[in-house]
Amino acid sequence: MALRTREDYLSALRRMRPNIHKFGKLIEDVTTHPATRRVVESHARGIDAAHDPALAGIFRTTSSLTGQPIHRYTSLMTSPEEMVFNSKLKREMYHLTGTCTGGLCVGWNGLNVMWSVTHEMDESQGTQYHERLKQYALRMQEKGLLVAGALTDAKGNRALKPHQQADPYTNLHIAERSKDGIVLRGAKLMICGTAAAEEIFLLPGSVYREEDRDFCVACVVPRDIEGLTIVEARRPSDERELAEGFDIPTETGISQAYLLFQDVFVPNERVFLAGEHKHTADIIARFTATYRACIGACVAGQGDVMVGAAALMARANGLSSKTFRDKLVQMEVNNETTFATGLGAILLGRRHPSGVWVADSLTAHVNKVHVATLPYETKRLCQEIGGGIVETGCFPSYQDFVNPEYGPLIQRCLKAGNCSAETRARLARLIEWLTIGAGVPGCMHGGGSPDGARQVVFATSSLKQYTEYASKIAGLEEEVPEPAK
Amino acid sequence: MALRTREDYLSALRRMRPNIHKFGKLIEDVTTHPATRRVVESHARGIDAAHDPALAGIFRTTSSLTGQPIHRYTSLMTSPEEMVFNSKLKREMYHLTGTCTGGLCVGWNGLNVMWSVTHEMDESQGTQYHERLKQYALRMQEKGLLVAGALTDAKGNRALKPHQQADPYTNLHIAERSKDGIVLRGAKLMICGTAAAEEIFLLPGSVYREEDRDFCVACVVPRDIEGLTIVEARRPSDERELAEGFDIPTETGISQAYLLFQDVFVPNERVFLAGEHKHTADIIARFTATYRACIGACVAGQGDVMVGAAALMARANGLSSKTFRDKLVQMEVNNETTFATGLGAILLGRRHPSGVWVADSLTAHVNKVHVATLPYETKRLCQEIGGGIVETGCFPSYQDFVNPEYGPLIQRCLKAGNCSAETRARLARLIEWLTIGAGVPGCMHGGGSPDGARQVVFATSSLKQYTEYASKIAGLEEEVPEPAK
Amino acid sequence: MALRTREDYLSALRRMRPNIHKFGKLIEDVTTHPATRRVVESHARGIDAAHDPALAGIFRTTSSLTGQPIHRYTSLMTSPEEMVFNSKLKREMYHLTGTCTGGLCVGWNGLNVMWSVTHEMDESQGTQYHERLKQYALRMQEKGLLVAGALTDAKGNRALKPHQQADPYTNLHIAERSKDGIVLRGAKLMICGTAAAEEIFLLPGSVYREEDRDFCVACVVPRDIEGLTIVEARRPSDERELAEGFDIPTETGISQAYLLFQDVFVPNERVFLAGEHKHTADIIARFTATYRACIGACVAGQGDVMVGAAALMARANGLSSKTFRDKLVQMEVNNETTFATGLGAILLGRRHPSGVWVADSLTAHVNKVHVATLPYETKRLCQEIGGGIVETGCFPSYQDFVNPEYGPLIQRCLKAGNCSAETRARLARLIEWLTIGAGVPGCMHGGGSPDGARQVVFATSSLKQYTEYASKIAGLEEEVPEPAK
Amino acid sequence: MALRTREDYLSALRRMRPNIHKFGKLIEDVTTHPATRRVVESHARGIDAAHDPALAGIFRTTSSLTGQPIHRYTSLMTSPEEMVFNSKLKREMYHLTGTCTGGLCVGWNGLNVMWSVTHEMDESQGTQYHERLKQYALRMQEKGLLVAGALTDAKGNRALKPHQQADPYTNLHIAERSKDGIVLRGAKLMICGTAAAEEIFLLPGSVYREEDRDFCVACVVPRDIEGLTIVEARRPSDERELAEGFDIPTETGISQAYLLFQDVFVPNERVFLAGEHKHTADIIARFTATYRACIGACVAGQGDVMVGAAALMARANGLSSKTFRDKLVQMEVNNETTFATGLGAILLGRRHPSGVWVADSLTAHVNKVHVATLPYETKRLCQEIGGGIVETGCFPSYQDFVNPEYGPLIQRCLKAGNCSAETRARLARLIEWLTIGAGVPGCMHGGGSPDGARQVVFATSSLKQYTEYASKIAGLEEEVPEPAK
Repeated sequence: MALRTREDYLSALRRMRPNIHKFGKLIEDVTTHPATRRVVESHARGIDAAHDPALAGIFRTTSSLTGQPIHRYTSLMTSPEEMVFNSKLKREMYHLTGTCTGGLCVGWNGLNVMWSVTHEMDESQGTQYHERLKQYALRMQEKGLLVAGALTDAKGNRALKPHQQADPYTNLHIAERSKDGIVLRGAKLMICGTAAAEEIFLLPGSVYREEDRDFCVACVVPRDIEGLTIVEARRPSDERELAEGFDIPTETGISQAYLLFQDVFVPNERVFLAGEHKHTADIIARFTATYRACIGACVAGQGDVMVGAAALMARANGLSSKTFRDKLVQMEVNNETTFATGLGAILLGRRHPSGVWVADSLTAHVNKVHVATLPYETKRLCQEIGGGIVETGCFPSYQDFVNPEYGPLIQRCLKAGNCSAETRARLARLIEWLTIGAGVPGCMHGGGSPDGARQVVFATSSLKQYTEYASKIAGLEEEVPEPAK
Repeated sequence: MALRTREDYLSALRRMRPNIHKFGKLIEDVTTHPATRRVVESHARGIDAAHDPALAGIFRTTSSLTGQPIHRYTSLMTSPEEMVFNSKLKREMYHLTGTCTGGLCVGWNGLNVMWSVTHEMDESQGTQYHERLKQYALRMQEKGLLVAGALTDAKGNRALKPHQQADPYTNLHIAERSKDGIVLRGAKLMICGTAAAEEIFLLPGSVYREEDRDFCVACVVPRDIEGLTIVEARRPSDERELAEGFDIPTETGISQAYLLFQDVFVPNERVFLAGEHKHTADIIARFTATYRACIGACVAGQGDVMVGAAALMARANGLSSKTFRDKLVQMEVNNETTFATGLGAILLGRRHPSGVWVADSLTAHVNKVHVATLPYETKRLCQEIGGGIVETGCFPSYQDFVNPEYGPLIQRCLKAGNCSAETRARLARLIEWLTIGAGVPGCMHGGGSPDGARQVVFATSSLKQYTEYASKIAGLEEEVPEPAK
Repeated sequence: MALRTREDYLSALRRMRPNIHKFGKLIEDVTTHPATRRVVESHARGIDAAHDPALAGIFRTTSSLTGQPIHRYTSLMTSPEEMVFNSKLKREMYHLTGTCTGGLCVGWNGLNVMWSVTHEMDESQGTQYHERLKQYALRMQEKGLLVAGALTDAKGNRALKPHQQADPYTNLHIAERSKDGIVLRGAKLMICGTAAAEEIFLLPGSVYREEDRDFCVACVVPRDIEGLTIVEARRPSDERELAEGFDIPTETGISQAYLLFQDVFVPNERVFLAGEHKHTADIIARFTATYRACIGACVAGQGDVMVGAAALMARANGLSSKTFRDKLVQMEVNNETTFATGLGAILLGRRHPSGVWVADSLTAHVNKVHVATLPYETKRLCQEIGGGIVETGCFPSYQDFVNPEYGPLIQRCLKAGNCSAETRARLARLIEWLTIGAGVPGCMHGGGSPDGARQVVFATSSLKQYTEYASKIAGLEEEVPEPAK
Repeated sequence: MALRTREDYLSALRRMRPNIHKFGKLIEDVTTHPATRRVVESHARGIDAAHDPALAGIFRTTSSLTGQPIHRYTSLMTSPEEMVFNSKLKREMYHLTGTCTGGLCVGWNGLNVMWSVTHEMDESQGTQYHERLKQYALRMQEKGLLVAGALTDAKGNRALKPHQQADPYTNLHIAERSKDGIVLRGAKLMICGTAAAEEIFLLPGSVYREEDRDFCVACVVPRDIEGLTIVEARRPSDERELAEGFDIPTETGISQAYLLFQDVFVPNERVFLAGEHKHTADIIARFTATYRACIGACVAGQGDVMVGAAALMARANGLSSKTFRDKLVQMEVNNETTFATGLGAILLGRRHPSGVWVADSLTAHVNKVHVATLPYETKRLCQEIGGGIVETGCFPSYQDFVNPEYGPLIQRCLKAGNCSAETRARLARLIEWLTIGAGVPGCMHGGGSPDGARQVVFATSSLKQYTEYASKIAGLEEEVPEPAK
């Protein structure tokens, strides 16, 4: 079967029920509404890429289930080499769009994680989840479905567990069960790429115990399923997306959304976990291991664009980009570090008996710490190279730029010799967008917080073994225990 | 005479000729227009403070010229103690407003710098500039005038000097001279606080030689002078300032503007430099020494607010702020470092024969390096403590918050136990505003670039002396010269 | 009276009872023994400096008690200006010696701290401590006595208080009291400069309560007092100090020692605290505030020497020092930061009713954090600029350098064109000495640990006030309390 | 054939001609002399490891040439998996010894680099180098030979090329050629592990052109070959290695040496490059790519030991190691970063037609930047956790510790409750050894300087491509060229 095209994809989106809102209003057509068309364009570029000979090696692969050509983002990753392509695809998506295309990766990761977990569940408990998931995977691959993924719940009071919350709505849960399926209620927050997605892979947001079994749910729902209301988050400078001109100079964009479930019925064939709390630990561990291995590629990809933008901005200011060699190198060191540390996590991973590869958790969480810190330095350097014009978007709006009275004077002020006023303005707005505007992705807490990652590093590391090395090298003849309290 | 009040100030602003534009339109009344009322409110709080017993020690002082009580921001700083109050006032202004009130400091600094420079000019050249400036200072003190300051020119091609530019408009210059005054043409860019200012102190943007003598001009003009068109810069998320609700939760704000001079006549009594290029080096050196000593207080003050906001956000998320003790301490270390390094620069300064104090240049430029780097870490830590809700403003808009249909669900999602949904939302928007929104001041390039500061550090430092120390301690018996090329 | 000279000082040291040991042996004459002559030479340079017209402004002052000229290090610091000279003297001592001359500063600081504390004690308790201290100060000033200072106890088990220790010897204490004086027992550790000192100012090592009153003692003892055994610590590469050649290229040096008190009688006139536990908090607070304000000057001074050494080493390698401009600037930024932050702490200090100045604690402790971190970067940069030859002292020993057989070949290998082999070798050994050898001072824990400093920063800062600023700016209408446990 | 044992190895060393000197004297037996026995012991542990079931997976492998079991450090690395074992072996060697065992890795790397280069030379020039190297490899594998490697020349004046030097001795070169072989003259410096090695793999120290063809030489010589004089470098605190006691608490150690060649004849069968300057660029590029990929494992391994030592030291001080959780995590993040970035470089490498794997240069050089910076932070944290006792070895020598008179008092001072005085002292000396003593390896310049690495990063990176991404995303319609000069 032929891989879907941009047109297939856009038609599919247009056929869906409108259930996305922003600024208090319903969006009728996500492919044309100014608040969502950019994120749709971003995802469409990912679909185009599978048809571009220069990029097809990254964006398409062969199904391990059918042997057919598929979009990479629907594949099962059965080797380190294939998982490396997860990283490469993410980095390339940033090159194509400048920002996050979350609908291409979280659902993909969810599929792979649940592949191993359902395999274990069926083996230990005789359930049929794995077969259900396989059927879903076949459909996802055949149609090239764009499946966003949702883990984060509203959570409520962080000091309480889901079942202890005053308002159970703060965590997505199974409100009812029937022989045909389950009914979902509650909220998932800050979900990337939903406006561009056709389906949403729901996963538990944390590790749960018996008393929170109703919060243990994994399934896939159509993005426009009955009972689901989606509200887009407001992001920095997002009103510019609604206006003409180049104050947002890109055709691409990002989105994050609140998913509000009000008694949404999900039929059994789409459900892959429904109360089996003992498996939530594996879901979280494997999801984060692979996801945090690969997000280093995202920030590397955006960093690459910042390197390019900084070099161009220097020239547009009339300076050689070589003036900033050391700073550009530091940006590149940051980019390659998050990319390569993630590759190390993949290389140190292991093959699960179900056939899929799982990255190494310790290294992946080290990478998450970098992902939450290094991009801030990269942005700072980009602003430093770019000069005062980029720092906080320090020049007048597009409406002023084209104002018949004083617009020409503004344009004379923006001209610095090497390119047109508009080119210089577009570059400055690009850097603003990348570093302090609507293109900034959630590298700090996206995919989990750095403090959570540090806890995993501490818990996973071999402290005991390290003390034994030190003890032996120092020639100690006694143990040195932790002091009694 | 009584110090002016908020009402005096607002009336004065309302009496001015409208000449400020934003989004392509003229602003009729800066005190009420949503694009400018916040920056006016910020400055008004600085005027209020002189009448607040708890703050008057910082915000008012006694004139060295008349012995009368005056607003601190109109004073001549004749001792290190008085210059320390420049720092303290800036830090306090951030406490009161959360962001930059540029109209309170640049003109003040300009007055002090030109005080010493005109003193030298008159002594060496027999001009009358110092007396003119004294008359202006008396008026500024008596009326408590708010005087913004403008140094940065549009510049044009960075590789060329002003007189070499294809378009001379890129640098403010004297287009004509008459016996009564001068005519100005050209642009000053990224000027802080003009919308809230009554006057603007114009200073040369760089060190110039003979061939650029027409670009050597220092004077003060009314903000609404004939021939001056002002266009406000567009800043991150600034359209939110035009809307109702708490997506910008503050009543205060910042502004930066383009000043477009089209044959503006300035009478002699307001002119303090008109072609004397040899003095531009001193103007730049003294302006940056004092200004960069004190801007550490600005970022410290905003850092204090970030510490407070982070602690409150942690609580609003349901966590003890003590959980983040180490991060809060690091933020405070950053804040106190830029504040105290600036105080060190003041302490190491010297008294100029004209009576004013001048800070130490080396230390001030070291501080500029910190001001361009440490706040980025402080912001990162603030976002880290605040959690996913603050990072890129990850929740729906005010219009969605109050939407009758799904607004209540959003509010349930935002509730985390310790305060109302609105309080939690306001705190999250505050952190967004402080770290990636309309409240971010230009700490990177404002007051000059960090690379420029590093050049001054290298040029000012005692490298030769340091090599002599090392040589003597190592017992060398020969010189080690720089290698021949 | 004339200020003492180097000869006066050396004669005084030679007259003392030998009670210092190293490598298992008693040192008969500290002024000539290779293990101690370097630290004595360092201190002698400080005494010389008071007679050097170029340095006398720093190294001598006028006694506030007698109006006579005195060595600066015996003065009471009664103004911020005078305290700044504490910083300047420290920085200059590093310029003269390359490392720490601890005998010139801790006792000096002890005198100033106890000046204010005894003043309060006498006022509140009617004791006579202040007068005793005044008498001691007069003698110290008249003779120009070199008084080391000792705070740190052996401590024993960190989880227990002094009176709970299995072995009370681990903390210096009053073993007996008589009408004439007290008897001391226990140990003070890591005391700088004792080999070069004539007296030692003993101070309590921590804040104590009633049950630890016997550990609350402040007094001055002659360094060679009966019952006191001193053992020098072994430091990196210290055996080189015993050999000829330039493997330690300096004539100067540092020392740290264990002071072992075995029933040492101290007469009343030398005792300034003997059980008054309530005052230990003030002693610690004031000692650390002033000491940590000024130690930034120490690491700045060593950093200056590292800048010089790095520049010379680059040249000796055949490279222009300008190649490393950015790294040299970063080193200088680090140096000026610790220096200037300390000056800020002084400026923010206050005058105690007893007449002496006390630095600001918060800022001083911020500085301690920098002192424990920035010098590590400075050393790293010095090694980076210096090249492979400096990193871990990567060339053969002096004995090999002069070996008749293969020494000439080694010298040919060390020659790089711009200076002699010996000069290049001396510079490399200097950098080794400064960054990983016998010249490295204790910037991490000397004067207290950085974690301790961070605790003070947290305790001293205005977190509550900062939350109020944030709350007001965000327009909150409710308090956001810490969550209940 | 059975793999060699420790005894085989030590016997082989004892049979060699003494030609190693230190402190001006010849060392007769490197296996027993206190200046060299530690580095021999370190290497012996690597040989032991191949016989240890728990470690054999890392330390032995199967020859790709013969199918026989061999020591890993003699293998050709023909896949990424095998190259990963290079990293794992290095990290494990640090676990076993605490420091660098350079004889196990540079020669190994030289063999692999020359494998591909000789393959190309023979193909393009019809030489026989590859077959010669294969014969050498077979012997190296069969005997398990320990082959150090040497690249760095003395260099002389850095501004001149080898043939321009006043003294040609500063660079190793072919002084004569005959039909049977070549004669070498000149010096290689800072060569690791020679005292423990049986042979030395000589490689060109830089990229050369035609005029420097005599400096283009690659060959292997016995370590005790006639005409070669070796002089050990003096390292921090290395005299402690000559004395008894625990001031150096380890049985293991490191060494670096000067190799002085005085007309050394090397027969043809050991020569793999002799003038073919065009191949030196590939030698340097491939050597650094693989070497810098794997050295991240070295500093990670030492970092692991520092983590262990810091945790034990905290306990020995009476504190729970958990007190320092955040610092330990930061140390671990540093360790895993250099390890994993190197793995990423391996994964991104390529298979050379000759069969061996070559790591990715860009990523490897990014790693070199980290290797030259992160360990400094790790050491700083180790010293911070360890407390004042570890910082500069702040306690008396072993001779004082056992002094009959005051030694018992010192021991009482060193006791802190949780272990013996000796254990606490040994741990403190271990941290001194690791962070500021004889165990510090050359992570800054070892394997090349970080500035050299930054140059490779800049030259290798895709700046042009990045500007194209930025240009396209910003919607630019013109090129922005570098400004004309």
